[in-house]
Amino acid sequence: MKADAPLGVFDSGLGGLTVVRALREVLPGERIVYLGDTARVPYGTKGAATVVKYALACARHLVARDVKAIVVACNTVSAVAPERLRVELDIPVLEVIEPGARAAVAATRTGRIGVLATAGTIASGAYPRAVAQLSTRAEVVGQPAPLLVPLAEEGWTDGEVPRLVVRRYVEPLAKAGVDVVVLGCTHYPLLRAVIEDEVRARIGAEVAVVDSARATADDVKAFLEARGLSRTGGPGSVQLLVTDIPRTFAEVAARFLGDAVGDVEQVDL
Amino acid sequence: MKADAPLGVFDSGLGGLTVVRALREVLPGERIVYLGDTARVPYGTKGAATVVKYALACARHLVARDVKAIVVACNTVSAVAPERLRVELDIPVLEVIEPGARAAVAATRTGRIGVLATAGTIASGAYPRAVAQLSTRAEVVGQPAPLLVPLAEEGWTDGEVPRLVVRRYVEPLAKAGVDVVVLGCTHYPLLRAVIEDEVRARIGAEVAVVDSARATADDVKAFLEARGLSRTGGPGSVQLLVTDIPRTFAEVAARFLGDAVGDVEQVDL
Repeated sequence: MKADAPLGVFDSGLGGLTVVRALREVLPGERIVYLGDTARVPYGTKGAATVVKYALACARHLVARDVKAIVVACNTVSAVAPERLRVELDIPVLEVIEPGARAAVAATRTGRIGVLATAGTIASGAYPRAVAQLSTRAEVVGQPAPLLVPLAEEGWTDGEVPRLVVRRYVEPLAKAGVDVVVLGCTHYPLLRAVIEDEVRARIGAEVAVVDSARATADDVKAFLEARGLSRTGGPGSVQLLVTDIPRTFAEVAARFLGDAVGDVEQVDL
Repeated sequence: MKADAPLGVFDSGLGGLTVVRALREVLPGERIVYLGDTARVPYGTKGAATVVKYALACARHLVARDVKAIVVACNTVSAVAPERLRVELDIPVLEVIEPGARAAVAATRTGRIGVLATAGTIASGAYPRAVAQLSTRAEVVGQPAPLLVPLAEEGWTDGEVPRLVVRRYVEPLAKAGVDVVVLGCTHYPLLRAVIEDEVRARIGAEVAVVDSARATADDVKAFLEARGLSRTGGPGSVQLLVTDIPRTFAEVAARFLGDAVGDVEQVDL
């Protein structure tokens, strides 16, 4: 049956495994096939036409594995490609930007929403666009935070270095008077504790931190339930596909997934 | 005349401008054409065959501009492509790894040489190979330092954050008992002051820090003089070519070059 089919999730690399981790928490019965295009990471520095081309290749690979829906676990792809994927593939496509924007709009009272993301995501304007479609009074204050990805990949997620780095990125948001901060990159949930501490200390104890990986997982759950596509037959699973196996793959993947990685298959797109 | 021809310098991005800066100090009379392949940066995550292909495209573009020699201002390309460039292009090709290795071998007394570099350069084994060709008794202790590139690009080159980050990378080198530390990435000269402070505080006041950009410039000077190719006719110049103009181009380029950038030309390879 369709409900029994796996969910397809893809990202340019391994960061999207934080979305898989959130999906596992919210939807423990689902079988998940994750594809990381590790041979071509990062997408953030590439042009939109190239990103769309790579995203189509990833999504087609998952469609060939009979997935019931595709989750784009990559902010760069979510910013430029979902409409094109929906048109070309005739399969439900969910992504990471709109759910985070929706959670932020629901949480804000002042209408000022802070977004921490990579320089590429901030420059794409994807968050202001998503927020503008949801609310006419809310506005986005974007803060590029380029050091957070390497901190997360290195596993430097607590202690003084991440604290001081996060503080420097949170201070402009505090000055701008935001009352919600969105983690607008799949790597950032690893730094969530430090970011929450700094946001509360520098902006205010009542300021909400929106984890877009978690907001996406909630969105996927609601979507599957509304269509009768949730899998109920026994425990779920995670299958990992990558286009290249980097040296530090197992270590970095386990960090993002929050669990040891099982079998990994290398695929050619 | 040939001596009057420009020097061609290329890198995957803008980091190689630290080599241009060192060349300007050592060879103020040279005209320099710098090509940054900013559309395809970074090379460090790409396979060797791809890096060789891109390096050939960059070098051929410079040859078409009648340069008298090519300086590969990129550790990734220097690790895999110089021999191939020499064979294909029939023009002198200088690079950044051998000069740094040579300066380190000359400076070490214990024979233990520390190298700070990107994870890709450390994994390539290029420094141990270069050192082995110069000395049978010296050995390399490689330390990947992935946060230093984003720190340099952000311009966070002094203060507590870079100090604490550098300290974490220097401590394993101190434990390994090195007496020389090579800056094995074109971005690191921007962090030289912090690295020198930490090396001296954690390892010892007499420990030499080898700037491979400066070692490369000295190497280029010796090469040009030996062949009668030095330019003596008036002040030199720098011409910048890039394959893409990133948003923060002028700011980042000025940081690496140590000077405002003049005219920039976008080229298609």
